[in-house]
Amino acid sequence: MGGMTPETLLDTSLPAVPLTVEGASVLHQMMRFRWSAWRALSSESRSAILEEAARSVTLGGAEQPAGGRQSSVYSLLGHKGDFLFLHFRRSFEELNDAQLDLARLRLSDYLEPATSYLSVIELGLYESSSDTYQGLAEKGIKLHSEEWKREVEAVLDRHRKAMAPRLWPEIPRSKYICFYPMDRRRGESKNWYQEAMSDRQRMMKEHGLVGRRYAGEVRQIITGSIGFDDWEWGVDLFAEDPLIFKKLIYEMRFDEVSAVYALFGTFYVGLRVPITKLADVLKP
Amino acid sequence: MGGMTPETLLDTSLPAVPLTVEGASVLHQMMRFRWSAWRALSSESRSAILEEAARSVTLGGAEQPAGGRQSSVYSLLGHKGDFLFLHFRRSFEELNDAQLDLARLRLSDYLEPATSYLSVIELGLYESSSDTYQGLAEKGIKLHSEEWKREVEAVLDRHRKAMAPRLWPEIPRSKYICFYPMDRRRGESKNWYQEAMSDRQRMMKEHGLVGRRYAGEVRQIITGSIGFDDWEWGVDLFAEDPLIFKKLIYEMRFDEVSAVYALFGTFYVGLRVPITKLADVLKP
Amino acid sequence: MGGMTPETLLDTSLPAVPLTVEGASVLHQMMRFRWSAWRALSSESRSAILEEAARSVTLGGAEQPAGGRQSSVYSLLGHKGDFLFLHFRRSFEELNDAQLDLARLRLSDYLEPATSYLSVIELGLYESSSDTYQGLAEKGIKLHSEEWKREVEAVLDRHRKAMAPRLWPEIPRSKYICFYPMDRRRGESKNWYQEAMSDRQRMMKEHGLVGRRYAGEVRQIITGSIGFDDWEWGVDLFAEDPLIFKKLIYEMRFDEVSAVYALFGTFYVGLRVPITKLADVLKP
Amino acid sequence: MGGMTPETLLDTSLPAVPLTVEGASVLHQMMRFRWSAWRALSSESRSAILEEAARSVTLGGAEQPAGGRQSSVYSLLGHKGDFLFLHFRRSFEELNDAQLDLARLRLSDYLEPATSYLSVIELGLYESSSDTYQGLAEKGIKLHSEEWKREVEAVLDRHRKAMAPRLWPEIPRSKYICFYPMDRRRGESKNWYQEAMSDRQRMMKEHGLVGRRYAGEVRQIITGSIGFDDWEWGVDLFAEDPLIFKKLIYEMRFDEVSAVYALFGTFYVGLRVPITKLADVLKP
Amino acid sequence: MGGMTPETLLDTSLPAVPLTVEGASVLHQMMRFRWSAWRALSSESRSAILEEAARSVTLGGAEQPAGGRQSSVYSLLGHKGDFLFLHFRRSFEELNDAQLDLARLRLSDYLEPATSYLSVIELGLYESSSDTYQGLAEKGIKLHSEEWKREVEAVLDRHRKAMAPRLWPEIPRSKYICFYPMDRRRGESKNWYQEAMSDRQRMMKEHGLVGRRYAGEVRQIITGSIGFDDWEWGVDLFAEDPLIFKKLIYEMRFDEVSAVYALFGTFYVGLRVPITKLADVLKP
Repeated sequence: MGGMTPETLLDTSLPAVPLTVEGASVLHQMMRFRWSAWRALSSESRSAILEEAARSVTLGGAEQPAGGRQSSVYSLLGHKGDFLFLHFRRSFEELNDAQLDLARLRLSDYLEPATSYLSVIELGLYESSSDTYQGLAEKGIKLHSEEWKREVEAVLDRHRKAMAPRLWPEIPRSKYICFYPMDRRRGESKNWYQEAMSDRQRMMKEHGLVGRRYAGEVRQIITGSIGFDDWEWGVDLFAEDPLIFKKLIYEMRFDEVSAVYALFGTFYVGLRVPITKLADVLKP
Repeated sequence: MGGMTPETLLDTSLPAVPLTVEGASVLHQMMRFRWSAWRALSSESRSAILEEAARSVTLGGAEQPAGGRQSSVYSLLGHKGDFLFLHFRRSFEELNDAQLDLARLRLSDYLEPATSYLSVIELGLYESSSDTYQGLAEKGIKLHSEEWKREVEAVLDRHRKAMAPRLWPEIPRSKYICFYPMDRRRGESKNWYQEAMSDRQRMMKEHGLVGRRYAGEVRQIITGSIGFDDWEWGVDLFAEDPLIFKKLIYEMRFDEVSAVYALFGTFYVGLRVPITKLADVLKP
Repeated sequence: MGGMTPETLLDTSLPAVPLTVEGASVLHQMMRFRWSAWRALSSESRSAILEEAARSVTLGGAEQPAGGRQSSVYSLLGHKGDFLFLHFRRSFEELNDAQLDLARLRLSDYLEPATSYLSVIELGLYESSSDTYQGLAEKGIKLHSEEWKREVEAVLDRHRKAMAPRLWPEIPRSKYICFYPMDRRRGESKNWYQEAMSDRQRMMKEHGLVGRRYAGEVRQIITGSIGFDDWEWGVDLFAEDPLIFKKLIYEMRFDEVSAVYALFGTFYVGLRVPITKLADVLKP
Repeated sequence: MGGMTPETLLDTSLPAVPLTVEGASVLHQMMRFRWSAWRALSSESRSAILEEAARSVTLGGAEQPAGGRQSSVYSLLGHKGDFLFLHFRRSFEELNDAQLDLARLRLSDYLEPATSYLSVIELGLYESSSDTYQGLAEKGIKLHSEEWKREVEAVLDRHRKAMAPRLWPEIPRSKYICFYPMDRRRGESKNWYQEAMSDRQRMMKEHGLVGRRYAGEVRQIITGSIGFDDWEWGVDLFAEDPLIFKKLIYEMRFDEVSAVYALFGTFYVGLRVPITKLADVLKP
Repeated sequence: MGGMTPETLLDTSLPAVPLTVEGASVLHQMMRFRWSAWRALSSESRSAILEEAARSVTLGGAEQPAGGRQSSVYSLLGHKGDFLFLHFRRSFEELNDAQLDLARLRLSDYLEPATSYLSVIELGLYESSSDTYQGLAEKGIKLHSEEWKREVEAVLDRHRKAMAPRLWPEIPRSKYICFYPMDRRRGESKNWYQEAMSDRQRMMKEHGLVGRRYAGEVRQIITGSIGFDDWEWGVDLFAEDPLIFKKLIYEMRFDEVSAVYALFGTFYVGLRVPITKLADVLKP
C-alpha cells in the first residue's frame, strides 16, 4: 500500500468500461424450409412465389446496398436451419421492417423461424479508452461531468468518422459464412469484468494480432449484443475456404483472452446464395 | 476481533433481508404470430378480428390507463416472439383476467404463447432497511415481535406513499423496449445472499449511481419475481434509441454488483405498436 | 484428535439420513389449453364436455375429499400452462388412475400436458432423528439390526399418528397457489449431503423459524420426490395474497440453508378455480 | 516419497479401469399416447389394433421370456411419457428389431417417442479387479500383453458364468418401476476418474452395503451406457411399494460415493401393465 | 526462476496451437421417420419412393465411393432419430449438395431432421508440432514470417501426403457405428488451452496408446469441428460388436486427458443399413 503512486490511484478511479463505436444494425434469421409443402406446389406457384421474393425490397432490392440496406441469403449446413437471412440496416426499426417484409412474402409460408441474432456492428476502442480517460483526468476534468461527456463524445465522433467503412461495411460476397455468438466469462474465480483495464487491453491486443495474420484469407465482422440478445457479442467470418474458420478459431483458442475468458454459443456455417440463384437451391 | 464494538455485534443479529415495497402486478407475454393462417383469411375477416381486438378491454381499452389497467403491444425483433404484450394491473387476479381476455379474442387463434414473465414492480430499500433495523434495535424493540412488525409496516407504508408514482407508473410510451430477467449469484464461493447487509447496500448504491447518469435517456422499471417466476428480478428499459440499452448495460456490467453477482436470462427487444397501428403491422 | 470423546466417535458412526414420514401421494399436472379448437365447438358441445368433466370422479367428485381423494384446478399465470390440476391420493396407483381418468375425459382433447411433478407429502424429523439414533446406540442396539429397525419403525409410527393431519391434509382452498421444486446443493465445495447431521439439524431449525412467522398468512406443504421426480422436493404454498409468496421466499433466501444449499426449479403461480367455475374461465 | 513401498509403486502402475461383465442389451422407450386420435377411432378399430399388438413378437410374444427376448409395458406417472416399453434382448441388433417391430404396429400411430435409454446389464467387479491386476503383476505378466489379456479374459469368463442369472435376468414382475440415469462426477476438484482404485473400491463397497439392506424390498438392475447413451449408467428399481424407492435413494445419497460423485438425470416412475391389461388402460 | 534455460524461454515463445491436417468433409444427419404417414401410402408409392432414393446420387450412387463421395445409412437405436445419414465429401459445398439432394427426394417427406454434425476429418500432429516449431526457432526463422509459414506449410504437405489414406478413408462397412461429439475442458482451474504444449503432447500420446490396443476391434475416425459445430471434435467408432465401444471409452475415461479435460455430448449408436436393405427396414 505504501508504494502506491498517484498514477496508480488515478488508474483505479478511471472508468472500467472500454469505449465503443457502433455502426450497422444486424439481424441473423435462421429458418427451416418446409420442403414437403413446397414440393406439393405446382411449378407455376413456385415460380410466382420466388419472383415475388426476388422483387421484394428485403430479399431482392436490398441485395444491392441502397442507403445501407443490404440482405444476403445463405444455405446452411446441418439441421440448425436451411437458410440464414442476414440483414444489415441503419436502425433496429429498419430491421423490424425487413423482418415484417419477409414475413409478409408468400415464401414465408414455407419458412419456419429456428433462431435469430440481434446485434450492431461494434468496434471496441481499448487503446483509445485508456488514453482518453487518463488524458481527461490529467486535464482535471471531473469524471462524468458534462464537460467530460462532451470530450468523450468528441473522441467517439472522430473514431466513428475514421472507422466509417468498417462500421457500415458491405456484406462480404465470400462463398462461405461462419457465425457464432460469444461471452466473456464471469466465473467465480476468472471474471473478465473484474480484470484491470490495462490487462484487458493487453489481452485484446494480442488477440487482435492473431486475427491480423489471417487478414487476407478471412473477413471478420464483430457485432455487439449486450442488451440486445442472449450473448454479449456475435462474430461473422467470411471466407472462400471454410477450413480457414477452423484454423483461425483453433489458433485463437490458445490466446489468453479466449482460453480463459471466452464462452462460445452455437456455430452456423453456410454457403452464399445470391437471390438470383435461390430458385436453383429450391428446385424441388 | 479485539476492536469489535457493540454496534458491530448488533449488526450481525439484524435481519439480512432488505425491505421492499411493491406496486403494479406485471405480465410479459411473448407470442409468435401465425402469418400463414392469417394470410389465408379474407381481408374482411382480418378487419373484423382486428376491430374486435381494438375494442377489447385488454388491448383496446386498457391502453388508456383506467384504474391502473394498462397494456402495451411491441413488435419483437428476432425469433423469440413476434409480439410482446405487456400488462400492468392492480393484482395477479386482474393479470389472469387480462390473460384470459386475450385468449378469448379471435386474434388469439393467430397467436402462440412463446414465453412469459410474471412479476411485480418492486423498489428495494437498502438504505432505509439498515436504518430501520438498527433504529428498532436501539429502541430495544424485540426482533419480529408484534411491535417490531407494526413499526416496520409503518416505515413501509410511508415509502409506499412517497414512492407511489414509481410503484404505479404509466407504461412509458418510448419507441423501444428491452426486457430481461436476472438473478443474484449464489455460487459456491461468491454468494450474494451471504454478503453482509452493509456490503450489499454499498454495492447497490454504486450500481444506482450508474443508472442515474442515464436518467434522461432511458427509463428503467424493476420488477421482483422471487416466488413468481424463474429468475429473481425482471428489468424493463424504455428508450427512443436502442443503443442506449447496450451502453447502459455494458457500463453496469463492470460494477461490482453486476460483475460478480449478476446472472442474466434472455433479452427481448421490441418496438412499440399502438393498438391503432396493429393493423399496419399485420398487413398481410 | 486427542480430545475426541466417546460421544464424538459415536456420532460419526450414526446414520446420516434423517428420518421422514410420508402421507398423501401428490401429482401436479400443468396443461396448456387449446383455445382455438375449443372456440370452434358449438356451445352445446362445450357444455356437454364441461358437464362430463364436472361429473367425473377426478375433477368433479374428487373435489369433495372422499377417502383421501382430492383434486383442485388452478388457472396458471403465464405461458407455462393454462391449468394446474393438483391431485392428492392415497397411493401412486390412485394417482395413475386419476391421470388416466382425466386423459379419458373429452375435455382432454383440449388439454396438452406441459409439465408435471410427482411426489409424496413428507415431514422431515431432524430433531427426532438424532435423538433416536443416539438413544438406540446408547442402549447398545446394533445399527441396522432387526431390533434397530423395529425400534426405528416404532418411532416413525408414533410420528405418523401424531402428524396424520399434516400428512393427509385437505388441499387448502386459498385463492392463490405457488409451486416450485428444489434441491439441496451437492457442489464440489458446498455439499449438503456431507454436512454433519447436527449442522443440518441446526440449519433446518432456523429455516423453520422463519416459516413459522408466516404461519397465519401462508400454508406450506412440503412433498418429497427423491426417486420420483427430477428435483428432491416440491413446495406448495397457499395464500390469499400472492405478495406473501415473494416476501416469505425472499426472507428465507438469506437463511444459511437456503443461501448456501438451496437450488430452485421452475415457479408456477395460479388462482384456484372451483370445478363449478371452470365454465366461466372457459367461456369462449 | 521416502516411505513409498514397492506395493505402492506397483499400485499406481496398475490399470485404473475396473473389470466389468455384461449381459442383456436393454432399451427403455418412453412414449406419449395420442389420446384424442385414439378416442376418435371406432371401438372395432381399437380392438383390432390392440389385438395386433398383443399378437406381436415384441409386445405379446416377448412378454414370455423366449430365448432371452422379453418386453414389459409400464403406465408412467406424469408428463414425461404415457408408457414405458422396456426391452431386454440378447444384442443391440435384437433391440433394433424390437424397436422396428413396435414402430410397424398400428398401435404406433398413437405413440410418440418422448425419450429412450440404451444400455447393457453390467456388473462392476471392483473387488476382483484389484486382485486380478495385482496377481498378474506379481506373476510378472506384462501389462496388456497377449498373456495378460488371456488371463483377464479367463477371469471375466468365470464371473460371466457365475453371475449369469444376474446378467440375463427376467424382468421383475413387481408392481412399480423406477428408472433413472446417472454419472460419476468429473468436476474440477472432485473427479471420480482420478480417485485411486482402492478408494473407489472402498466407496463402492460401502454403497453396496446400503443396497443389500433393501434386498428383500427392492430389486435393482444396473446397466452400463458409456458409449451408448448420454449418461454413464442407468438404474432400474422394481418394488411393490414405491416409497421404498425414495427411502433407498435418500439413504444412499449420504454415502460418500453418491454424496460427492453421483450426478442424476431424469427420474421415471410407472406401474406395470401386463399386455393383457393394456386394453383396460387404453379404454377410451 | 534463476534456473531458466534458454530452451525453456524458447518454449514459452513457441506457438501453443498444434499442427493439424484435414481430409474429407463430413456431415452426420440424424433424422426421425414418419412411420404413420409412410404406412398410409400404397405399397406402389412406397416402392417408387424407395427406388428413387436408391437411384439418387446421394444415397444410391454415393454408396460406391466415387471421387470421394460416399454416404452410409444407419438405423439408430432409441428416440434420438430413426436414421443416421453419414456423408463423406470433398468439400462443404459438396456436403451442401448432398443435403439438398436428400431434401429433394420424395423420401424426405417422411424424414424429419432431428440433429446433425458438421466436421472435417482431422489428424492432430502433436509430436511433429513441437519438433517443427523448435526446429524453425533454432534455424532463427522468425515466427509467423512468410518463410516460417512456407516451412510449416511444407511440413503439413508432407503429412497430408503420408496420411492421405487416413484423411480420405472409405466409410468402414462395420455392422455398428457409435458417434459422439466432445470438447476439451476450459474450466476455471482445469483448462486444456492453458496447459503447456509438452504436457498436452504427453497426455495425447498416452491416450493414443490406449486406442492402439483396440486397433483390431474398432476403427476410429476423428473429425474436427471448431468453427463448424457446437463441440470441438466429433468421434466415429465402427465395430462388429458394440460392447467394444463401451470397453474402449470406459478405459479411456481414466486417461489423464479424458478424466480431467474431456467433456462429452450426445451419444448415437446405430446399425448399418446398406441402401439395398433400406426397403426391408422400412417394410410397414
